[in-house]
Formats: sequence, C-alpha cells, structure tokens
Amino acid sequence: MSEKTVPSLAELLADAPSNWGKWGPDDEVGSLNYLDREAVLRGAAEIKSGKTFTLQVQMGNPNGDPVWPGRTGAVRYNVMDKGHYLGGKGVNFPGGLEYADDVMIMYLQGSSQYDALGHTWYGDQIWNGKSADSTTGGLDYASVCALAERGVVGRGILIDIAKYRGKAVLERGETFDHNDRMAAAKAQGTEIRKRDILLIRTGWIGSFYSTPRDEFYKDFIEPGLTYSPELVQWFADMEIPNLVTDTIANEVTTDPVSGVVLPLHAALMCRLGVVFTEIIALDALAKDCGDDGQYTFMYTAAPLKVVRGTGAPVNPIVIK
Amino acid sequence: MSEKTVPSLAELLADAPSNWGKWGPDDEVGSLNYLDREAVLRGAAEIKSGKTFTLQVQMGNPNGDPVWPGRTGAVRYNVMDKGHYLGGKGVNFPGGLEYADDVMIMYLQGSSQYDALGHTWYGDQIWNGKSADSTTGGLDYASVCALAERGVVGRGILIDIAKYRGKAVLERGETFDHNDRMAAAKAQGTEIRKRDILLIRTGWIGSFYSTPRDEFYKDFIEPGLTYSPELVQWFADMEIPNLVTDTIANEVTTDPVSGVVLPLHAALMCRLGVVFTEIIALDALAKDCGDDGQYTFMYTAAPLKVVRGTGAPVNPIVIK
Amino acid sequence: MSEKTVPSLAELLADAPSNWGKWGPDDEVGSLNYLDREAVLRGAAEIKSGKTFTLQVQMGNPNGDPVWPGRTGAVRYNVMDKGHYLGGKGVNFPGGLEYADDVMIMYLQGSSQYDALGHTWYGDQIWNGKSADSTTGGLDYASVCALAERGVVGRGILIDIAKYRGKAVLERGETFDHNDRMAAAKAQGTEIRKRDILLIRTGWIGSFYSTPRDEFYKDFIEPGLTYSPELVQWFADMEIPNLVTDTIANEVTTDPVSGVVLPLHAALMCRLGVVFTEIIALDALAKDCGDDGQYTFMYTAAPLKVVRGTGAPVNPIVIK
Amino acid sequence: MSEKTVPSLAELLADAPSNWGKWGPDDEVGSLNYLDREAVLRGAAEIKSGKTFTLQVQMGNPNGDPVWPGRTGAVRYNVMDKGHYLGGKGVNFPGGLEYADDVMIMYLQGSSQYDALGHTWYGDQIWNGKSADSTTGGLDYASVCALAERGVVGRGILIDIAKYRGKAVLERGETFDHNDRMAAAKAQGTEIRKRDILLIRTGWIGSFYSTPRDEFYKDFIEPGLTYSPELVQWFADMEIPNLVTDTIANEVTTDPVSGVVLPLHAALMCRLGVVFTEIIALDALAKDCGDDGQYTFMYTAAPLKVVRGTGAPVNPIVIK
Repeated sequence: MSEKTVPSLAELLADAPSNWGKWGPDDEVGSLNYLDREAVLRGAAEIKSGKTFTLQVQMGNPNGDPVWPGRTGAVRYNVMDKGHYLGGKGVNFPGGLEYADDVMIMYLQGSSQYDALGHTWYGDQIWNGKSADSTTGGLDYASVCALAERGVVGRGILIDIAKYRGKAVLERGETFDHNDRMAAAKAQGTEIRKRDILLIRTGWIGSFYSTPRDEFYKDFIEPGLTYSPELVQWFADMEIPNLVTDTIANEVTTDPVSGVVLPLHAALMCRLGVVFTEIIALDALAKDCGDDGQYTFMYTAAPLKVVRGTGAPVNPIVIK
Repeated sequence: MSEKTVPSLAELLADAPSNWGKWGPDDEVGSLNYLDREAVLRGAAEIKSGKTFTLQVQMGNPNGDPVWPGRTGAVRYNVMDKGHYLGGKGVNFPGGLEYADDVMIMYLQGSSQYDALGHTWYGDQIWNGKSADSTTGGLDYASVCALAERGVVGRGILIDIAKYRGKAVLERGETFDHNDRMAAAKAQGTEIRKRDILLIRTGWIGSFYSTPRDEFYKDFIEPGLTYSPELVQWFADMEIPNLVTDTIANEVTTDPVSGVVLPLHAALMCRLGVVFTEIIALDALAKDCGDDGQYTFMYTAAPLKVVRGTGAPVNPIVIK
Repeated sequence: MSEKTVPSLAELLADAPSNWGKWGPDDEVGSLNYLDREAVLRGAAEIKSGKTFTLQVQMGNPNGDPVWPGRTGAVRYNVMDKGHYLGGKGVNFPGGLEYADDVMIMYLQGSSQYDALGHTWYGDQIWNGKSADSTTGGLDYASVCALAERGVVGRGILIDIAKYRGKAVLERGETFDHNDRMAAAKAQGTEIRKRDILLIRTGWIGSFYSTPRDEFYKDFIEPGLTYSPELVQWFADMEIPNLVTDTIANEVTTDPVSGVVLPLHAALMCRLGVVFTEIIALDALAKDCGDDGQYTFMYTAAPLKVVRGTGAPVNPIVIK
Repeated sequence: MSEKTVPSLAELLADAPSNWGKWGPDDEVGSLNYLDREAVLRGAAEIKSGKTFTLQVQMGNPNGDPVWPGRTGAVRYNVMDKGHYLGGKGVNFPGGLEYADDVMIMYLQGSSQYDALGHTWYGDQIWNGKSADSTTGGLDYASVCALAERGVVGRGILIDIAKYRGKAVLERGETFDHNDRMAAAKAQGTEIRKRDILLIRTGWIGSFYSTPRDEFYKDFIEPGLTYSPELVQWFADMEIPNLVTDTIANEVTTDPVSGVVLPLHAALMCRLGVVFTEIIALDALAKDCGDDGQYTFMYTAAPLKVVRGTGAPVNPIVIK
C-alpha cells in the first residue's frame, strides 16, 4: 500500500464509538469504571486452588529488556554495598547494621507497563476530549497516576492464540481479531464475558529471550490484534476494561488493510478508554492454564503511582 | 546512653531465633514461604464487599517524596509529548497517531517498596547465611527479583496503633511492641492469626504531606516497633511472612534501650526472613476499616522484578 | 512596581541593536566571530609569567553545587572500583589491571557553563531570527555544540567590581553598569579594549560555599549588570564576544527599573549574539591579579560538544 | 598465547621505573608537575598564526558515541523548550523571556576524557602508593578533580603515525612504539622535546563514524602503543606529562607479546603518573599540520572538576 493512500485516524474512526463524557467530564480512568465492586467479586469467585502467578518481565536484565525501538532498558547502579564496607566507605550505624542501596534509570514504558489513557491521541484531543496540550512536560490529565490510584481488580481470562493456532509463537505481523479470540476461547472451553479483563498470548515477548536481537527488531512488526469497525464495536459492547498482551504494543504494529500505525491505540484507548497493558509475561500462566484447564482467574494489578507519568511499570498478579 | 556501650548486633542477637536453612540452602524469599496456597485461600475468604485500596504513596511528586535521609525522590522527564508535535519534532506515524513518553530516575527504595532479603546484614552474612560479598555491584542472591517473581498474596490485617492511642500520628520516636499490637487488635475486634500479613499504621507517612520538611527530617527518628527478644520470638512463632508499615524503616530508628540502629532489620529480615514493606499509605484504608469494622482483607503485592535490585517500588492492593 | 506595568521585551528592546544576519543566515556562534586569529594573538601577547588558573567550580560536591533554583547539582555513582574487586565482582583482565568507573547525571547548566545562543529568546525567534520551534526536544540550531566546536580564545580582562566597591561580595540584588565597569578598570590600572572577553567578579558564587543554603536562595536575586539602552549599545560598539561572571545568570535577576526578568539575556545573547558564561570561580584569579597588578591575560575555554545541548559545562583556563 | 602464561603486572613491571613519592606523599597530579611556568611559556612560544582547534568528539550523538565496550554514550533530555510554551507549560517570566533547559546522563569516561591517576591500578595500590580501597564509592585520592583544578597547558606535538605509515587509519591491533614515534616526528620535520605533551594520531576514532558498529567493536582490539621496558624508560626520561590519542584506551588493547591487557595504564599512569587523555579527535588538526607543516603548538585542556570522579570529559584547545 502506498503511504499516500493511508487514511487519517480522523477519517478511519469517523463513525467509531466513543465513551467520552460517559463517566463525567473529569474522568481519567475510562473503562476501568466497569470494574465496580461486583466485578471484583466476580474475579474473587474464580479463585479455586490458591495458585498465583506474577506477570512482569524481568527488568534491568544485563542481556537486555524487550522495548519499543528507540527506548532502552532500565539500568541500575549500586550506591552502597558490602564492597563499600570492605573499602572502608560504608555508612556505620551503632550496632553494626550494613546495607545495600541502588538507583535505577528507566523509560516508564520500558518494561511490563500500563499506558496512561493520555499516552496516545490523534488530532488535538486525548481521552475524554481534553486538550493534547495537557501532555506537554508531563500529563496533567489522564496520567498513569489515576489508573494507579484506582488499581485493577476483576475477572481475568487468558486467550492463548498461539496455542489455538498450534504455534509456539505467532509470526512477525500475524494478525487476529475478536472472532479468532472467541473461537480460541471456545476451543479452550471458556467464554469471554462482559467486563472481563482480556489477557491475550501470542508468545512474542517470550520469544525475545531466545531470538537474536537483530532478528527480533528487524523491520519491527509485532503480531497482534488488527483493526476493524466490528472489533471496536465488540470492545464497546463487551465493556472490556483492560487489554493485556505479551507484545510491546498490544496490536499489530501496522494495520495491513489501511496502513495506519497502531489504530487500536486510537480506537480503543483514546476513544473508548480501554486501558492497555503491554510487555506482559504470559508463558508460565498459559502453561498452567493448559494443564489444569482453568483459563479464568482473579487478576490484580496496580502500576506505580508516578505523578504525571505517561505510563508506569507493573507486576500484575493472577490468582487461580 | 553513651555510644561506647552500644552492643553489636552479633551480641544483641546471639540467642535470637533464625530461619537460615529452613527452606533449603538456596532459598531467597524467606518467610514468604509461609504464604502457600492455603494462605492465599485464607486471604480470598476475607473478600466481602469488593472494595479495593491501593497503598503506594505517589512518586515523583514535585513537592517531594518521603525518603530516608540521603536518598532523593524520583524525577521524571518527558521525552515526547504534544509540545514536540507543536514544535515540529514529533514522531509522525502513518494515520497520525501521536504519543507522550518519559523517563524516570529513582532510588529503588525511594518510594513505597519491598526490601530485598539481602538489603541489610551484619557481620559478613546476609539472609540464609550467604556471603555479604554477594551484594557488591548488585545482589547476586536474595535480590528483590526473587520476591517479585513469587509475589505476595494472603490474609492481611491492619493494626491502627495511632487510633488505638487516640492520636492522628505517633510522636517522633514513639515505640510500641507486639503486646501493644495485640491489644490494639483486640480493641479493633480483630485477632492476629498465624501467617497473617501485618499492616501497622502509625500515621507517620501521612503526616509528611502536611509537615514542613525541616521539621519532618529534624533529628530524624521515626516512631515504630521496638526490639525485644520476646517480640522477635513472637514473629518467629506466628510465622509472620511480611511486615508492612507507613514509616520509612518499619521500626523505631534507634532502639532506645540498646542504642542499636534498626535492630529489627537484623533480627527479623536478616535472620528470620521476614519481608519488609516500607513507606506505605495506610490512611484511607484505616479510615474505611474504622467505618465498616473490617480490619482483615486479601492483600496482594508484587514489587518490580528488578534484576539484582536491593529493593523495588510496589503498589499493593487490598481487597475487602 | 506592579507586574501589570512590566513592559514586554519586545517593547523594551524595540530600538535595541541587533547582529542578526551579520555573519550570514546560518551563523550559530554570534559574537564569537569577533575572536579571529588576530584576537587570538592579542590574547597570547598577554602571557607573561606562565601562571595558569582554572575557573570551573567543583561539580558533584556532596555539600551541593550552586545552581539556578529548580535545578539540582550533579550526582555521580561508581559502577566499578576496588570494592567490586574485594567483593569478587571486578572485571578481571589478563595481567591483573583493575579499574574504577562512574556515571554522572547532571543539568547541562548545573555547573560553570556556556549558554547556547539558542538557550533563551522572546517572542518566537532565537538568535539570528531562527524559529524558537527549533528548540523543541533539543536545539536544532545555535546549540552549545556550535560554540564548543569553535572554542573561545582571546584576550581576557578581569573587572573586580566587588574589590572596586570595597566589599568581599556584592549585596543581594546590587547592580552595576558599563560605567561602573570602566571606572573599576581604570582603578585597576587597566583598560577594556574592543573584542575583550569580559570577566566580572561580584564575589557571589564564592559566597555560596560559606552561606547557609536557605539564606543564599532566599527571595532569589543575584547582584549583577543591569539593563540600559546605553549599556547594550556599549556591548555592541565594543564588540564584546563573551561575558563571563561569577553569578548564576550574568545579570541582576530582575531589572529594578522595568521589572523585566533577565533582560540582558534578550538584549545581549539573543539579539547581539554575545556569549554568556556563568557560575565561574573568579576568587583565586582575582586575588592573584590584585597581587601582581596584571588584570589581562589569555583566556581559553571550550564547553563540551553536547549535540543539541542548551548549554554545557566548561572549565576555562586563564594564562598570565 | 595461552592465558596461563600471561605474567602478572607485578611480574612484568618488577623493575620498571616509578615516580611514587617524587612530588611528595600527597601528590595527585603526577607528571603534570612537569608542566611548570617555563613549560607554559614554551607552549605559548609555539603560537604563530592564531589558528585554533577543539579536540573533543561530539557527545550525545543520536547515532552513537565511540566508547569502551560496556559503556554507553551520553543521553540528553530537554526539560524545557518552546514546545512547553506552545503547550502552555513554560515558565513565564515578567517581560516574556523564554528558555530551553536539559539534563544529561553519561559515563564520565564516555567521551573525550582525562583519566584520573587513580582510575587504574594493580595489586592494592594506586598512583603514589595510596591504597586502592580509596577508590571505593568514589576516588578519595588522585581523582580527576585534582587534574581539573590544575589544568594542562604546555607545548604539544602531534605525531601522525597513520600518515607516517601511509594509511588513513591503522589496522585493528596494529602497534607502534617510541622509536616509530621518533621516526615519524623526524619525517614530519619535528622533534619531540622533554616535557612535551604527546598527541598521537592513529585515525581510529575518526573511523568510528564511517564504520558499521558491528565491525568497529568486533573482537575489540584497538591499534596503539605497545609495551616494552625501553618505551617506559623513554617516557620516564623524557618526563612526558600527558599522552593524548585518538583511541579509546591510548595503547594497543592487549599486548601481543605478554598477553597482558593495557600494561601501559599500569606502567605509565599508575607508576609514572603520566596523565592519559583518550577518545580525542585529531583528524582536522592533523590535516592542518600536514598543510602548514607546523606540528607543534600550545595545548590547553581542563577536564570537568568532578568531585571524586574517575575521569571527566574534556574539550581541549590547540592554538597554533
């Protein structure tokens, strides 16, 4: 497709549904509003065995972290440790307690993370119609801090698309949509319900650790969900609060039909307020779900409360 | 007390209980081992109404974050936002999606955080008897990553010591012990059970936001738990997995009896493997517990999986 | 003065001289163009005894660095040192060489530094009439890198205003102008010549190290040069390439006449292309000049070549 | 050569000359002591035409900076610029001055830089016999700050080894010694004198910008000076204060004879106190020297005064 014919997001989404104003003019958490107390109790009802899983990828890995091209992984430096004491430079407390301490430098979206609702936009308006000028220098509105203050608790469901397609990992740029998801759920013996937190496994992030870096990032295009008006409507109708995937951007990087980059960030995040959770480790959970046949669970997650942050790292917990 | 008479931790804790080796020579999570599936289900059984609370303090606050003297709060910088697009410097994607992005520099223990079991030691051995040399340049053993991989889920109980003593916030250096805690629990109509995750409120961190900085940090001494052999034995016998407080260091800064600084870091963290969670916001939760009389709940928390980290920030979730 | 009556810089400088275009439409170094080979030789001619002085303040001082309010001093962390080797974590080279290594985080204008000509502006145009949009995300034009590539070498002259007024350090907000400077030069037995690099001592930065922080920053207003049309014309006529002072902003913070903040940044830097060098240590040099009566010398300085930087640290050398 | 047979530096340098104690027990600048006033005047005597050259490589280049493997180039972020003003987030000063501001994160040895004399050692002693423990957490002794306070001014001489060998750039691992240097000097029509500051050009750093990264860093081995007892003695006898090259480590990475890594860091820096200046851009200067036949000049340089730093960036100036 020639770039000249790529439509603008304004054109593509002219008739798309929107939740702007639905939760008042000052709402900053969007579809997380669907996670009311009843939704929390529905999540709790899925706890059966007491098994737990943590879903963050490791960060500050000396061998590199999976990040969007242009970002860099976290780096960490010790500022106090036994070496300081051996060298006569430790802080000496009465009684003799010694300690280690460290600092870290990171992209806030450089690990498993929640995107703030104000993280992406098109034209001049972010979520809920606020001016995109409010993002300058830090998000005055719809920052990740609002999501972090609320937290995310509800019924989660894992859809293992890779397994459904009989693959360890989807191909570069391989797409799927809501119909595939529902078929995969059916094959798993599960059903996606309204207000479920959707966890979708492609195998992509897991493959990062066994793929040469050059190959992983070459012509960077991830597998993922692909845009259609029907898919967007499905998200609106199902009142999905949170989309969680094991890819860096939660959707196929470039829509193969329109040529638009990341249209679901616009259609789902910006217009519907669906919260995106990216770079999530799902392989261990998926294996367990395959083993015990339980693909639904309580999902809890709360990113860091970074004031004005465009996103923040998170280590979600799944409880089965 | 003259500093000359301050005993060493080795002397003070010569007869103190130890869990070294209890979970094998390579264990890195200590008393979190008490949080087995049964403990998770006990936590889930406390979910009644579906109310949730997030417990991190905000980080990167322009007015300052509460941190141990010498550390600094997190700083955050935008590297992309609407200002870049207005100035003609934005990244232009086909379709017109725009985005904001940011980086953060932080002390890993500069916000609400889990201490790694290898964070403090005395003599030359950290948790489980490993050499303190393993802390140099980054924790090779018992780093926060091990805690983060496991996650923390169980029955939590809030003990509101400040309320019990009829105060908004404890005094500078004010102490309490396990007997006070049990009396406070009884006054609340609750009971501390074996393997409960202990949340203790002093009001101290909440007071940071309304206290002039100079006054908050003057002659820095926090209120908190104070050392006694009986208290340590109580923690061992009760198999407490995790101690969570609204202070920066989870115990009175200097033990008024012995003059030792932070003896419970040695007795509880280093020897028993009790995991410490510090700088936690408990005021909103405490108010709700006072209102509905429910002081027990499911507690879930997972710090960031920072490779070799001495600690990591966390945003715990309480579900009632 | 009421803020309502403060004129805009556009009004204040409506008739002020400008060097825009003088050195072509793409010039990025402004009045440094005056420092041609002849100027370099004039500087060399001042070398008499071989005495040298370095003029940067120390940076990363544990007790704090003098910076503009809101900025923070540099912080430095070791990432390798003898402690790492003692702890068994050092990098081992064949033969046994060991080393120390470190990282630093800094404001580029958080120490002795050269301002890029694009560092400040009013309206929408920076130096030479380029669009201020070019500053977004990094200076595309007139960054400090251009100054750093060229370097600064010429005849320098120290004007010790503090000594002239019989003070160790000027008062908070105390002002002076070109007439005072010329009178001070005369009292010193020197004469300011065309194209001289001007070094002006107030004693202010030196006082930072012996003044309580609260007092130094209280109602922050530095002593310094003060705006007048005549002073600006004097700089234009004298073809001054570089203004170097021992204050953070090279001029009195707020012009007591107009109420405008930092008008000389606009009149001299933005319109004339005079290069500003700030936070410079002049006390040792001034003492020596007082002792030997030689107030003129060769001045050499080259800030770091930071690509797109708004400024960069520098350690100038004076050779007498 | 088998690694088993690599001698230790203690063995290799058992009979090597040392300057420890020569300038007193507390000296921190070593052979810079040779640069007395007379040496400064000898440097000034080389100024002929007024031509100047700045020798730092650009830093924070978006395409990468040349650094030792494992280090990373500097990164720079704007924290204020026209984009902030367009987005309504600028700081508004009375009168309307606007500004840009930025921060940088860097390895202190991640650009053109001076090594502190305490940067490398073998056994347990750094320069002048001080304990290597003094390096832990920051250099207490012989840090770059001492070099920066003193500054470097003298007669410099460029030896263009690449040109002498008829190459644009030396080969990977290609070596030369003091005899080659003297022959090259003679071919240039110059003579190395006692106490000259030596600038040696290999073409290596210049080649970084036109070489694919993978190729530049492959089996990392730079061309450079190679160890021999005679070469070390030559440096001692010639009282060379400062060695400046266009490579990252100033010597061939691994000595092809002994297999020792960086033996000259031990023999020259650690024992003789010769100051090392690395990653220097010499191509433009070399071209000019070839054109006008003047290979000697005044050399001035002062790294940043980073307190306790293991090294610091520098932008030297050459004046002909």
